[in-house]
Amino acid sequence: MDPLLQFPLALALIVLAAKASGYLSIRLGQPAVLGELLIGLILGPTVLNMLHWPIFAGGHLGETLRYLAHLGVLFLMFIAGLEVDMESLRRAGRPAIWAGVLGVLFPIAMGLGVSLLFGFTWLEGMLIGLMLAATSVSISAQTMIELGVLRSRVGVALLGAAVVDDILVIMLLAISTALMNEGGGFWHILWVLVRMFLFLALAIWVGARLVPRLPVRVERLPISEGVMALVVVTVLFFAWAAEALGGVAAITGAFLAGLAFARSPLHQHIRDRMHTLAYTWVVPIFFVHIGLEANARSISLSGLGCALALIGTAMLSKVIGCGLGGLASGFSFIEALCLGVGMMSRGEVGLIVASVELESGLITQQIFADVVLVVLATTLVTPILLRLLYRKPAR
Amino acid sequence: MDPLLQFPLALALIVLAAKASGYLSIRLGQPAVLGELLIGLILGPTVLNMLHWPIFAGGHLGETLRYLAHLGVLFLMFIAGLEVDMESLRRAGRPAIWAGVLGVLFPIAMGLGVSLLFGFTWLEGMLIGLMLAATSVSISAQTMIELGVLRSRVGVALLGAAVVDDILVIMLLAISTALMNEGGGFWHILWVLVRMFLFLALAIWVGARLVPRLPVRVERLPISEGVMALVVVTVLFFAWAAEALGGVAAITGAFLAGLAFARSPLHQHIRDRMHTLAYTWVVPIFFVHIGLEANARSISLSGLGCALALIGTAMLSKVIGCGLGGLASGFSFIEALCLGVGMMSRGEVGLIVASVELESGLITQQIFADVVLVVLATTLVTPILLRLLYRKPAR
Repeated sequence: MDPLLQFPLALALIVLAAKASGYLSIRLGQPAVLGELLIGLILGPTVLNMLHWPIFAGGHLGETLRYLAHLGVLFLMFIAGLEVDMESLRRAGRPAIWAGVLGVLFPIAMGLGVSLLFGFTWLEGMLIGLMLAATSVSISAQTMIELGVLRSRVGVALLGAAVVDDILVIMLLAISTALMNEGGGFWHILWVLVRMFLFLALAIWVGARLVPRLPVRVERLPISEGVMALVVVTVLFFAWAAEALGGVAAITGAFLAGLAFARSPLHQHIRDRMHTLAYTWVVPIFFVHIGLEANARSISLSGLGCALALIGTAMLSKVIGCGLGGLASGFSFIEALCLGVGMMSRGEVGLIVASVELESGLITQQIFADVVLVVLATTLVTPILLRLLYRKPAR
Repeated sequence: MDPLLQFPLALALIVLAAKASGYLSIRLGQPAVLGELLIGLILGPTVLNMLHWPIFAGGHLGETLRYLAHLGVLFLMFIAGLEVDMESLRRAGRPAIWAGVLGVLFPIAMGLGVSLLFGFTWLEGMLIGLMLAATSVSISAQTMIELGVLRSRVGVALLGAAVVDDILVIMLLAISTALMNEGGGFWHILWVLVRMFLFLALAIWVGARLVPRLPVRVERLPISEGVMALVVVTVLFFAWAAEALGGVAAITGAFLAGLAFARSPLHQHIRDRMHTLAYTWVVPIFFVHIGLEANARSISLSGLGCALALIGTAMLSKVIGCGLGGLASGFSFIEALCLGVGMMSRGEVGLIVASVELESGLITQQIFADVVLVVLATTLVTPILLRLLYRKPAR
């Protein structure tokens, strides 16, 4: 078929499948992202292998979808940065910081340990640990809203800890990408780190001084969708500069751009419009594309043990790390447990880190598939456990 | 450079260049689209040849941009359909219909005549005529708003005639694509036409009966950006079906989808959000991409005469056709002249038709470049002439 015809049809199928499965998932009391990931696995090489159907053969559909999925990632990380609320972070205080920090350290340490047991290299072990460290609390937050406990001490700590977690994971990913892209002797590593800190300092300065003033100025000019065009150009440029100039992952740049626009007086408008730009099509494409890239068949029977071990590690390490953080800041045992379980679910960020590592050739297809399973399992279990802990029946 | 890095950088450059040139153009008293087309020509093979810079070599950037530009076209045609206001068309009445019909017939006839003089084939001549028939009154409407005369008899007729023009050109393009994709004997042509009318009837029925009810239903469901995802899926599916099932151009399907959603109670919301989805990045990509595809260097010195002749034909044929239409429905000479001049500017639709024909291999690079020049020239001249006719100084 004419490539210019394949593209609309494939996009229509992917967006329709993603939204329909997300809806079904919510009707079954599960988060939407679960359905979007599962339909991706079904459309991908694991089951239907959609991109190799005769009507989609030839042309550049696969590459274009990869580019669009990457754009979805950048938009998601931008929104994550935009939604960082420094004020509520300050209010959440000690528990958020303890739970956030320990909730990153424990998964990295335990992920590394388990990986070494299963014969992975130290490098792979570190990367697996990093992927296990990324939390996505949107699912827990949604569940706690339904249970009416998001404004409790645990809920506030959860939201704060998630921000700490996001920032730490992105920093650690930045450092590890910077070091791994290069390698070499002491002076070289030093140069890589200096370059990274120079970029981060410059980006934060530009983001704090220049960026927040721009939207109001552009809004006055006769440019159609000028503000959103400015936002998109800035996100893309920060993302490019992060990797090309700073040697860190592109998503770091998109996240920093989000932090910058959060200070603009127009941030409410930007959040609203960016939601449309992201969730209408590029974010669903990202979630489905994960399934199109991952091949669950690449997990052999022996690999299944490893995948299960990683799922267990992912769950336990968050509960222990964040739980200890909660206890250390004066939470009761049950409160600490709720906090730990709430931090357990992985989501976008873990998948984003995994995609970045897969694209860079740092991890294998098998590890990628394992991580997708970890995300699916923790996403599935977290709301159920939370509801049990709060002793309210699921709808 | 890593393809996943090329893409954000190229997108950022293109959107930034488009919006900045559009703004500059408006500051110079010209329509934004003029600047966006010119910057495309500058970035394209005519001057800078951006896609062949070393940083953009390798990867699939060119193909991805073509897909996104095509998406921009579909979104534009959807918006055109969405904005068709049957009510004001009825109010504009006779002058709108006369000016619309004659304003299509004269450019086709005169375009064909001039093309034959310059040695083009009959087929090419018909296609050139069709491209010259497409009006874009957004520029004239904008100028008339500035002059405060859009609500006059001429202004209302102009808006109505533009709708008639749009529908006629899209119908004629549908018929000619349907016939040209196939060819063959009488029975075959009959089958092609039957298939086309079956598709159009089905699409209009679905568009009138099913589509308008869907947005309100989807809005109630817990799907993030559900309404806009529905709209995008429908546009893409209609576009695909138009070409794959009906054998007509994909833009016909997108236009029909626009007509359908115009009847939804949520059409205001859809229009607003679609504006963001389209004008933030995919529409600017489309305009710049025209320049990336067109090579003005492909116009030789001998070809320059032809280009100038086509520009003259484009201007005269609209003024004569639409002017006669105005006279036939009782306008004074000066009113008819204003109407004809207002209909003179070509824009999106002419370019869209030209892109469709170029992609199908029906016209040569040189004809495509000629049409881009026609659009540039008429877009440049129309607001100046209109201001002269209304005897108000340009700002």
